[in-house]
Amino acid sequence: MHPEDFRRAAHELVDWIAAYRERTPSLPVWSRVEPGSVRAQLPAEPPEQPEPFAAIVADLERIMMPALSHWQHPRFFGYFPANANLASVLGELASAGLGQLGLNWQASPALTELEEQMCLWMRHLLGLSANWHGVIQDTASSATLVALICARERLTSYAASRGGLQAEELPLTVYCSGQSHSSVEKAALLAGFGRANLRPIETDETYALRPDLLAEALANDLAKGYRPCAVVATIGTTVSTALDPLAEIAALCRQHGLWLHVDAAMAGSAMILPECRWMWEGIEQADSLVLNPHKWLGVVFDCSLYYVRDPQHLVRVMSTNPSYLQTSADGTVTNYRDWGIPLGRRMRALKLWFMLRLEGAEALRTRLRRDLALAQWLAAQVDATPNWVRLNPVHLQTVCIRHEPPGLEGEELDRHTLAWIGQINNSGVALLTPAVLDGRWMCRVSLGAETTSQEDVAHLWATLRQIEA
Amino acid sequence: MHPEDFRRAAHELVDWIAAYRERTPSLPVWSRVEPGSVRAQLPAEPPEQPEPFAAIVADLERIMMPALSHWQHPRFFGYFPANANLASVLGELASAGLGQLGLNWQASPALTELEEQMCLWMRHLLGLSANWHGVIQDTASSATLVALICARERLTSYAASRGGLQAEELPLTVYCSGQSHSSVEKAALLAGFGRANLRPIETDETYALRPDLLAEALANDLAKGYRPCAVVATIGTTVSTALDPLAEIAALCRQHGLWLHVDAAMAGSAMILPECRWMWEGIEQADSLVLNPHKWLGVVFDCSLYYVRDPQHLVRVMSTNPSYLQTSADGTVTNYRDWGIPLGRRMRALKLWFMLRLEGAEALRTRLRRDLALAQWLAAQVDATPNWVRLNPVHLQTVCIRHEPPGLEGEELDRHTLAWIGQINNSGVALLTPAVLDGRWMCRVSLGAETTSQEDVAHLWATLRQIEA
Ligand SMILES: Cc1ncc(COP(=O)(O)O)c(C=O)c1O
Ligand SMILES: Cc1ncc(COP(=O)(O)O)c(C=O)c1O
Repeated sequence: MHPEDFRRAAHELVDWIAAYRERTPSLPVWSRVEPGSVRAQLPAEPPEQPEPFAAIVADLERIMMPALSHWQHPRFFGYFPANANLASVLGELASAGLGQLGLNWQASPALTELEEQMCLWMRHLLGLSANWHGVIQDTASSATLVALICARERLTSYAASRGGLQAEELPLTVYCSGQSHSSVEKAALLAGFGRANLRPIETDETYALRPDLLAEALANDLAKGYRPCAVVATIGTTVSTALDPLAEIAALCRQHGLWLHVDAAMAGSAMILPECRWMWEGIEQADSLVLNPHKWLGVVFDCSLYYVRDPQHLVRVMSTNPSYLQTSADGTVTNYRDWGIPLGRRMRALKLWFMLRLEGAEALRTRLRRDLALAQWLAAQVDATPNWVRLNPVHLQTVCIRHEPPGLEGEELDRHTLAWIGQINNSGVALLTPAVLDGRWMCRVSLGAETTSQEDVAHLWATLRQIEA
Repeated sequence: MHPEDFRRAAHELVDWIAAYRERTPSLPVWSRVEPGSVRAQLPAEPPEQPEPFAAIVADLERIMMPALSHWQHPRFFGYFPANANLASVLGELASAGLGQLGLNWQASPALTELEEQMCLWMRHLLGLSANWHGVIQDTASSATLVALICARERLTSYAASRGGLQAEELPLTVYCSGQSHSSVEKAALLAGFGRANLRPIETDETYALRPDLLAEALANDLAKGYRPCAVVATIGTTVSTALDPLAEIAALCRQHGLWLHVDAAMAGSAMILPECRWMWEGIEQADSLVLNPHKWLGVVFDCSLYYVRDPQHLVRVMSTNPSYLQTSADGTVTNYRDWGIPLGRRMRALKLWFMLRLEGAEALRTRLRRDLALAQWLAAQVDATPNWVRLNPVHLQTVCIRHEPPGLEGEELDRHTLAWIGQINNSGVALLTPAVLDGRWMCRVSLGAETTSQEDVAHLWATLRQIEA
């Protein structure tokens, strides 16, 4: 496509996107298309000849629009906020337009150095010390996999460069909370530890990992000849934003020489607020940390920050150095390909840079404080209303609730819960995600979409009250 | 950022990008900034208050522009073509603008189904059978890691769900060509096999894996009690676009029950040309296959296609199913989170869709044929010129050359080679990547940038001739 044609089509697309964002509040949040309905409308083969841009815009409207669930909707309360702030969208556009590829520093000095600087900016905003060194990865899932591989290699003195994990005599074990995100188990399995060597530790009444049980599990494993390797602590669990007690866990890790990885994928964004930093007290003792600016903070997916204390170890585990990637700058520069799994990297730092500059840090803090207040407001409504139960301590933006009409319990209660959540989702008024807590289904209200206002939350609460009828 | 502000800024940015693409040919291909120079120009902390968009555009010009290596330049002959076709840039913009996140089918039916359909379209264009099932991943590096993990799990009957790789009694081994991309070794190490269990097999005079030596290595390992697990064959090696003999390798894999993964990261794009398909004859016997539309084909990075024959096995190895990700559509739909490492996924299929429709398949084939012809032309010049040596069979778009003045050999020749490549790169006229082949440095001329013309290649050849003086 020639720049002139691009110019014309892109202007049209920009207007279409702006209009999409303007009308989002009027759309049903949840897509109600049938499985297969999108594919059924698409030709089986690509066209041989070019089609006009208008044909694509028409299909975006006709085929795609009904099949989108609107994550940018003000009444999207499902999963977690995955804000695609429009300033960061500009950054993504700039990145695509420049078409840079960061195989090594020399292949795009700006790509590497902007990423380094954005990791510094974020470190500063999050109140982290200068002992952390950051990189942008795609997701927390990938970062946690990298962390567990690094833990494995540290404990085995780089077994990968010899016989690998399969040559180790005694099994290495990994510990996490029973409320950990599924990506933790996935990472442990992919890294080769085996499910039998993963220890989900029971949680307390706030759904936080119990350090006494962690200590017990460690003692047990040591007695049986296992080699404890790593603990993954979560700050802000997915289901209920529980906070694993970092300082206590870190003490155990120090005592036993374990790698401590902190998964703050969702809650990490809140650490730009000084008043929230008690939540991850002890963070400075961790070995690695992941948080997702592509969630609540607002950077359009994907932008996951992975910080480590020992970048040399990370590089040693991840590095490759074939002749075709060598340059004379090696040794004095950062080659981010050695900080993660993929070789090719795009200029993702642009979207952080654009967002931080066009919004300013103060506005980001104001928005997050708004969400914390909205969560408190909703929690207060639930607490004050008979037959409604709040199930989690609300220190962040997720309120776990259940409607418990007298006499309903067990599976009957589960059916009721799933029914009213489904009803609201199907109505298109709001989107809510059910999840299991303590063996029973309940409803997560995850606040924090960029455009959510007090009215939206009040509207949600009114809608919730209607299901009582 | 409000849609109205976005509209204004985005129009400006679109024009800036179009202008960038128009002036790219006049820019030096290679950035010559000093390490640290970009960072030195950026503030240490993010701004508290919003900055105007004009400030960012000014910094793009002033700070970023000199620090870019221009991958979209018509005389970018380094690494490999990483074309960021502007139609695909539009797709990336649409993806960012819509802000979709594919955690499961329901979270964005359009995201999942468009991706399924684009994998079909590409399968069709590539001449692959209906036995292949595709997914878009970020890079070949990640896809090859997934492939080796799947191989590991198949041979061990899902050891991950038990004691993991570390519980296996006999060591599993992996085979590849000595010319494999560094991502293959990295994947084997990350997956826990260990370098001692990776067997780089020697190559023949065309730099292709020697199946007789592979058979020998397999016999040897079996005799010693190793358990051969997987072979990674490369179609189009990075250094010289060598073609491992797939059919023969596949026969050995069948005989020994090995997983066959094919890395066609770069050369896969050529398979949209029927006349190129002899190069991967035997492909239908592989278990998995990766190719990067984000290279020569033109889709802006990242867009790596990973095809497997047995998606159920892939899903079993990669799947997670926590309560908060379950929906009533599960079982009847594709949940792509179980087809790779990351959980969150963006709507990457849009950029394939936009490019295939706005360009049409015929134009893509025409462009690739142009590049094949340009490579033949350059190879012919080299062959006809004294003291110039062509080092690889040119069946794709990479010509490996060396200037060998009489009397120069060994390290002296190496110094000469690196000197003239450095000189050309520093001149800004063209970008070339040195690499080692048969123990000696040489120059890869990797053709295929979208805007490269016959004049550009002639210009390069004239420039090369000048170094003789
Ligand atoms: C605590 C936690 N960890 C990890 C993840 C996974 O994030 P990603 O999609 O970036 O892998 C999530 C959210 O999905 C999460 O809430
Ligand atoms: C043959 C081959 N395999 C793998 C790769 C790695 O590609 P990616 O950056 O997508 O991981 C490349 C190119 O860099 C390649 O040429």
